[in-house]
Amino acid sequence: MPLTEQTGPFIQSASLPGVINLGLGQPSPRLLPIAAFAEAANRQLHAGTDPLLMQYGAQLGHPGFRVSLAHLLTDQYSHLVTAEELMLTGGNSIGLTLVSEVFARHGDIVICEDPTYFLACGVFASAGLEVRGVPVDADGLDVDALARMLAGGLRPAFVYCIPAFQNPCGVCLSPERAQRLVELAEAHDFMIVADEPYVLLHYADQRPGSLMRHDQGRGRVISLGSFSKLLGPGLRLGWAHAAPAVIDRLAQHGAIRSGGCLNPVVAHLVWPMLDDGVLLAHVAELRSVYGERSRALTAALRERLPEARFIAPQGGYFCWVELGEDTAALLERADNVRFIPGSRCAVERDLGRFVRLSFSFYEVEELVEGIERLAALRGG
Amino acid sequence: MPLTEQTGPFIQSASLPGVINLGLGQPSPRLLPIAAFAEAANRQLHAGTDPLLMQYGAQLGHPGFRVSLAHLLTDQYSHLVTAEELMLTGGNSIGLTLVSEVFARHGDIVICEDPTYFLACGVFASAGLEVRGVPVDADGLDVDALARMLAGGLRPAFVYCIPAFQNPCGVCLSPERAQRLVELAEAHDFMIVADEPYVLLHYADQRPGSLMRHDQGRGRVISLGSFSKLLGPGLRLGWAHAAPAVIDRLAQHGAIRSGGCLNPVVAHLVWPMLDDGVLLAHVAELRSVYGERSRALTAALRERLPEARFIAPQGGYFCWVELGEDTAALLERADNVRFIPGSRCAVERDLGRFVRLSFSFYEVEELVEGIERLAALRGG
Repeated sequence: MPLTEQTGPFIQSASLPGVINLGLGQPSPRLLPIAAFAEAANRQLHAGTDPLLMQYGAQLGHPGFRVSLAHLLTDQYSHLVTAEELMLTGGNSIGLTLVSEVFARHGDIVICEDPTYFLACGVFASAGLEVRGVPVDADGLDVDALARMLAGGLRPAFVYCIPAFQNPCGVCLSPERAQRLVELAEAHDFMIVADEPYVLLHYADQRPGSLMRHDQGRGRVISLGSFSKLLGPGLRLGWAHAAPAVIDRLAQHGAIRSGGCLNPVVAHLVWPMLDDGVLLAHVAELRSVYGERSRALTAALRERLPEARFIAPQGGYFCWVELGEDTAALLERADNVRFIPGSRCAVERDLGRFVRLSFSFYEVEELVEGIERLAALRGG
Repeated sequence: MPLTEQTGPFIQSASLPGVINLGLGQPSPRLLPIAAFAEAANRQLHAGTDPLLMQYGAQLGHPGFRVSLAHLLTDQYSHLVTAEELMLTGGNSIGLTLVSEVFARHGDIVICEDPTYFLACGVFASAGLEVRGVPVDADGLDVDALARMLAGGLRPAFVYCIPAFQNPCGVCLSPERAQRLVELAEAHDFMIVADEPYVLLHYADQRPGSLMRHDQGRGRVISLGSFSKLLGPGLRLGWAHAAPAVIDRLAQHGAIRSGGCLNPVVAHLVWPMLDDGVLLAHVAELRSVYGERSRALTAALRERLPEARFIAPQGGYFCWVELGEDTAALLERADNVRFIPGSRCAVERDLGRFVRLSFSFYEVEELVEGIERLAALRGG
């Protein structure tokens, strides 16, 4: 049963022979820790495993797993995370569906960073929510602009943001802005849904931590974390981290009340990796490899596309580059290199002169070659 | 890492010492095939497993898995099921969330059998849908009553039904009614969401098959199937079975476009069980055990509660019993036996004189003892 057919949402473009697709927001296959996962899973699964593993899982997830996760996050975030603040999910995409149904109603407004993770908007659209954009700069979401929108009468159900190594901009929300954002949420009665899959993937001095540090018991922030970028996206395992009262509301979603935890078996299989250091050792490797890749990409950009403007990312998967020309048209002319044109990530702004480049999928040499091709395409 | 803490939505009530909880709609731990699952999973997971298992999974699920599932369903349903008609889900509860967002809009009406699976209504409520009820009798959903509601101007987004061994009534939709239901869907432009976790759990002559047999390419039926009742609920693995154009709409849900298949790893782990006969051998055991339990339950009812009225179920998990008194009040007086009072399963009707009894969780002796206690409670 070969898995090579198992094509992800974007893998097919990647597998076009001879094409370097810098649009791919996923890890390279060699960075998927299949051997370590198999070892952990085999340790957990045997004829004597408690059959209750196959019973409905607790709505919040296994209490012991949540304690292990709380320890890991406390260590990594440098602030206390308790098991009571955690609920397992089936990854951040379905997590956004749950959050949309619990904390918004059809027709409500969601404010997103502009540009944002383009596929999140599709989740909100499926839930019948209306998306509005607020600009992003080097310090993340422009909280002043948001404050003006709120002062103008806009009443969002929630603000959706990616505070750590934003997709696509690669920037982090400054602590001052984070603080102000939470205060605005209190003053104007909205929630903040922080999509935080990259928070532990830092490669330099910038270590943003989770937005939950600024919630301080207010119950305004829901941080959606995921094992997708720490182990592998196919696991479909993530978590919501929020004040216990917020977690309780999320756990009352009809699908959770009916079916229990969204992925208790996979949680059980990866559990040893949280406790025995295997997950953190893997994250350390990711930091090393992705850090090198991000530096190689930005060095190649500086050398081959000196007119390109960008903020060198210190974490995450992405670099957001202003090329100063219509990048959707550029993509149409491309045959051996691909990328996400800025227009795809735009909510309301005209961002057609930007591209999102990912450095997660390819090796250094391929990234450099990809930038060579991009430069040749622009010159051509 | 003991799993005994891992309490499902209802397990805690079960674990009250000395109480027989006939409300539990889940398999007994001894019927969860943990050893067989562990063996299959260990076969699938090793250091040499394709790392793409951990990459985003294809939106519809692995094509090869869908072929295996199509073969299994073709064999069991006695009509052709193709892989193109199948999409994997994370179980029927989250499947109902996807269906609700794709095929209805906030404020739309969903017609449910009355009584119905009570937790499904919570899924619809989370999606902002309004639930209306249509009666059920010995032949399933009362299609004449539905036709009258439609003639009266009711415009549902979809009809939610459990055509095979209905929860809680244990009855099956007759082929004539099924045919008429699909024709009504065409005439009045609504979808039919068939929740079919029990379709293969038949214990006597009644073998209803899937409602999809009556769709005949019309694209009106979505059958939600699940491994929850065939292997174990904790797997959180199910499927949608519908015309390819309907499957395509479902796959365009924002969360699927963003995150791919909802549970590709668990699908990969159970895959061998579909091909090597282990799943069907287990289902054969379930038919034998549950058949014996259902007959013991109904025999005990006839003996100990001769005034109780019920239709002896020929499959599924449940028996719907008219006791002729307020069963919610009865439950309040109970200390060593529990059940789901009919009012809990009611949508709009007054069903307070009924109880839902499940025969899936307990052994024959416990079921008989449970009925003894129920009889004593009524007499007391």
